[in-house]
Amino acid sequence: MAQAVVRAEQYRGMGAAEFFYRNKEIAGFGNPTRAIYQTVRELVENSLDATEVHKIPPKIVVQVEAVDPDKNIYRVTVDDNGIGIPPDKAPYAFGRVLYSSKYVARQTRGMYGLGVKMAVLYGQMTVGKPTLVITSPRGSKFTYRFKVKVNVKTNEPEVPEKGEWPKSGDWHGTRVSIELVGDWRRARTKILEYIKRTAIIAPYADITIITPEGILVRYPRKTYEMPEPPKEAKPHPKGIDIEALRQIIDKSKAKTLKQLLITEFQSIGPKTASVLLKRAGLEPDLNPKTLTDDQLKALVDAFHSYEKFRPPSPEPLSPIGAELIKIGLKSVLKPEFVEAVTRRPSAYGGHPFIVEVGIAYGGEIPPADQPVLYRYANKIPLLYDEKSDVAWKVVGETIDWSNYKVSFPAPLVVLVHIASTKVPYKGVGKESVMEVPEIEREIRLAVQEVARKLKRYLTKKEKEEELQKKVITFMKYVPEVA
Amino acid sequence: MAQAVVRAEQYRGMGAAEFFYRNKEIAGFGNPTRAIYQTVRELVENSLDATEVHKIPPKIVVQVEAVDPDKNIYRVTVDDNGIGIPPDKAPYAFGRVLYSSKYVARQTRGMYGLGVKMAVLYGQMTVGKPTLVITSPRGSKFTYRFKVKVNVKTNEPEVPEKGEWPKSGDWHGTRVSIELVGDWRRARTKILEYIKRTAIIAPYADITIITPEGILVRYPRKTYEMPEPPKEAKPHPKGIDIEALRQIIDKSKAKTLKQLLITEFQSIGPKTASVLLKRAGLEPDLNPKTLTDDQLKALVDAFHSYEKFRPPSPEPLSPIGAELIKIGLKSVLKPEFVEAVTRRPSAYGGHPFIVEVGIAYGGEIPPADQPVLYRYANKIPLLYDEKSDVAWKVVGETIDWSNYKVSFPAPLVVLVHIASTKVPYKGVGKESVMEVPEIEREIRLAVQEVARKLKRYLTKKEKEEELQKKVITFMKYVPEVA
Ligand SMILES: Nc1ncnc2c1ncn2[C@@H]1O[C@H](COP(=O)(O)OP(=O)(O)O)[C@@H](O)[C@H]1O
Ligand SMILES: Nc1ncnc2c1ncn2[C@@H]1O[C@H](COP(=O)(O)OP(=O)(O)O)[C@@H](O)[C@H]1O
Ligand SMILES: [Mg+2]
Ligand SMILES: [Mg+2]
Ligand SMILES: [Mg+2]
Repeated sequence: MAQAVVRAEQYRGMGAAEFFYRNKEIAGFGNPTRAIYQTVRELVENSLDATEVHKIPPKIVVQVEAVDPDKNIYRVTVDDNGIGIPPDKAPYAFGRVLYSSKYVARQTRGMYGLGVKMAVLYGQMTVGKPTLVITSPRGSKFTYRFKVKVNVKTNEPEVPEKGEWPKSGDWHGTRVSIELVGDWRRARTKILEYIKRTAIIAPYADITIITPEGILVRYPRKTYEMPEPPKEAKPHPKGIDIEALRQIIDKSKAKTLKQLLITEFQSIGPKTASVLLKRAGLEPDLNPKTLTDDQLKALVDAFHSYEKFRPPSPEPLSPIGAELIKIGLKSVLKPEFVEAVTRRPSAYGGHPFIVEVGIAYGGEIPPADQPVLYRYANKIPLLYDEKSDVAWKVVGETIDWSNYKVSFPAPLVVLVHIASTKVPYKGVGKESVMEVPEIEREIRLAVQEVARKLKRYLTKKEKEEELQKKVITFMKYVPEVA
Repeated sequence: MAQAVVRAEQYRGMGAAEFFYRNKEIAGFGNPTRAIYQTVRELVENSLDATEVHKIPPKIVVQVEAVDPDKNIYRVTVDDNGIGIPPDKAPYAFGRVLYSSKYVARQTRGMYGLGVKMAVLYGQMTVGKPTLVITSPRGSKFTYRFKVKVNVKTNEPEVPEKGEWPKSGDWHGTRVSIELVGDWRRARTKILEYIKRTAIIAPYADITIITPEGILVRYPRKTYEMPEPPKEAKPHPKGIDIEALRQIIDKSKAKTLKQLLITEFQSIGPKTASVLLKRAGLEPDLNPKTLTDDQLKALVDAFHSYEKFRPPSPEPLSPIGAELIKIGLKSVLKPEFVEAVTRRPSAYGGHPFIVEVGIAYGGEIPPADQPVLYRYANKIPLLYDEKSDVAWKVVGETIDWSNYKVSFPAPLVVLVHIASTKVPYKGVGKESVMEVPEIEREIRLAVQEVARKLKRYLTKKEKEEELQKKVITFMKYVPEVA
């Protein structure tokens, strides 16, 4: 008997850890194939954030080992030379859902404070073991070792084991090791593709993966040139809502409204502050902490209706740059033609963003019936849910490639990179980007720009081939006339 | 100057309210168009859960009013005749993210404990006002009134106003009213379509919507026949992981392992319990609270490898039934042909599910180049992200409709309903369902089954038309021979 019952409504609250544990599929941990893929991804992305955001040329080793292949138990280990994690933060960084150093307006791969905890949780729910973390922060004299779990009920980290020892060299970095039930066989191709695409977008990184079969794939560093790291910026008034304003006021030390506007926001100097306050019908000397709901609303309305703000500062962004994109595409795909462009900064809803597009054509690229799209958001390769991504809409559905002399099947790879302080992902699994009109437009313009260069190249090539033919035809007759 | 800075890593935790406030787009509140649509949806879905799950024939009135059309401020109000909310729970139900009466294994529209709070938050961040709730629980002698906000920092409800008064009649139900900045003009079509599709799937409901233009659209009740409400069931062993087992043990009063297995799980009687414990190498008399990690793992392994469990009980499910689907499709679409099927219960990963499919053809349905797909999950119409949904994969991409005598353009509507204790949505916005192989298979079989009936109908019709032609041809000659 199933012993099903009808009960009165049972009301209860749930913590964030239990919520994401119960709904792990929305974070990309829906089945053993996705889970092992996502685990590699989350660890690699953390390692890249811990290195390149701090201008350390990344050196990352990923190892997937078969612990018990019959039961599909694997161990994923990722090693980096990043900044490490302070020992008082490490248990939270790995054992508390929604804990992060990336909750700031600055372009990083991470943003939700969720990724590695999902992997830790998945490991503990399928294999039952804690995650092993070894870390030495930059400048620290010690190396620290933790075993960490997430307490699903309380969202507190559990640390069944820890230790530390003095270090001799100046190594710094982090090593994370998670045992989980995964389907390596099915995930294999995607994981290797993920590493390859990561290497393309980060040619300044040295990335190695060692598979359970003992195969080692290495993408050596191609350059020491690195993108300028992102800087943290103040919020832009256009992105502010009533709740955000309330939070800023809570934290601010400003004594007057005018001071608040000038010190806490981008693009507001004394003059703009006066104009805004006048529009909102508010006295400049008001104490910000005393604002009523209606006054908060009036100020936000003034922010939204003011036309003359400078666009959000692009300083929190760290695009790759056309040169590095070309290096990445060339070295990995070996095409006959490569071109790339980095657009000027743009913005949606107060968030700055930059679109970059690269095209690789011919050479060792196999012909396909459609353009092959390499999607990236904040330098993360996105491999799932392609058809629901804004970049696919442009590259696969809007652009008429025949206008650019490309006729399919063709050996065409299009790389689209969206860099933003707030990538509008469709879900916390970070697999596809929403159709924000401003972003769509920038992608279209960027693709068109690069595609025009491809067209010039293909036109020239066509002419040369015709010429070649003529020469050959001519040559045939040369001996006779000679 | 943007005054951007490079700072040391700032580590911090975030509460669930702040997380969803900052990432509202993943819950369907990404812009003013989606936000007003989603607000209507979340309120209507709560009203339907509060009625039909308790076998109350729903009577629901949705009103959208323009408060300040220049600033796009609208008020969405939804009234129902449901079970109401106890006054001590109401502030949490509306003012705390991740609080619900639906965190149980039972088919309901709600499941995340998030929906109405996102609407409350969106209202308070765009207009700044609290949400107004008036509720009278079934059996209560009072009516209660609350104004509620979510404290974004603490995830505690804020109740700036409340009151209560004795009631005379036996009215029970809830009225929720939220002011928000929304784009009614753009959302209008989707909202009306949403209401229409809700009426199709719930012909036992009386649903009215009043638009800001003062237009009233009503879908009167077509029947008092209602689906059997879902019952709450115990967990099925196949769906259990180590963490779930740990939680069950924490809560259980069972003194021995054997008792635990028998009392806390579906499909385990004394005999099966003994077999499972033997496989796991565990003594039946062990106190469950003393299990080590390895012992927990061994028990879960035994659950997963045991072949002879009955499939999960379908009692927590509440499918609509083929008859009601036909009534719904007929009354709203006025087709010439309608057919429907409810498949037998199936399961994925320990969660029971049932697929239902209806087809409507011809009549007042306008011809289209593709089948028009009406997707539903736990009776919720899904209108966005169609192309990434498992149902679209089957109906739009896998089935060859020409096998069923349908040649496009054709007047064909296909309704697919997935009912489950755990619908594998791709995101908390509940817009599309993942491609779970078991679910995909059931959808395919169901569509094929109904499509065969359509084929028979179309074949018969063809023959009749031919006959008709012959009769007409014959008739022409009748007078002459007469
Ligand atoms: N390899 C690493 N090196 C340094 N810090 C790390 C590393 N992995 C994780 N962290 C820290 O742990 C935090 C939480 O990581 P995660 O849960 O993946 O969320 P997010 O990356 O979105 O911040 C990060 O913000 C970072 O501060
Ligand atoms: N109209 C209503 N009638 C009765 N209860 C309601 C109503 N609206 C909301 N609730 C209660 O509030 C809870 C929270 O609602 P919500 O945030 O939408 O999450 P969910 O619907 O996923 O549980 C519901 O579980 C329900 O108990
Ligand atoms: Mg991360
Ligand atoms: Mg999603
Ligand atoms: Mg709800």
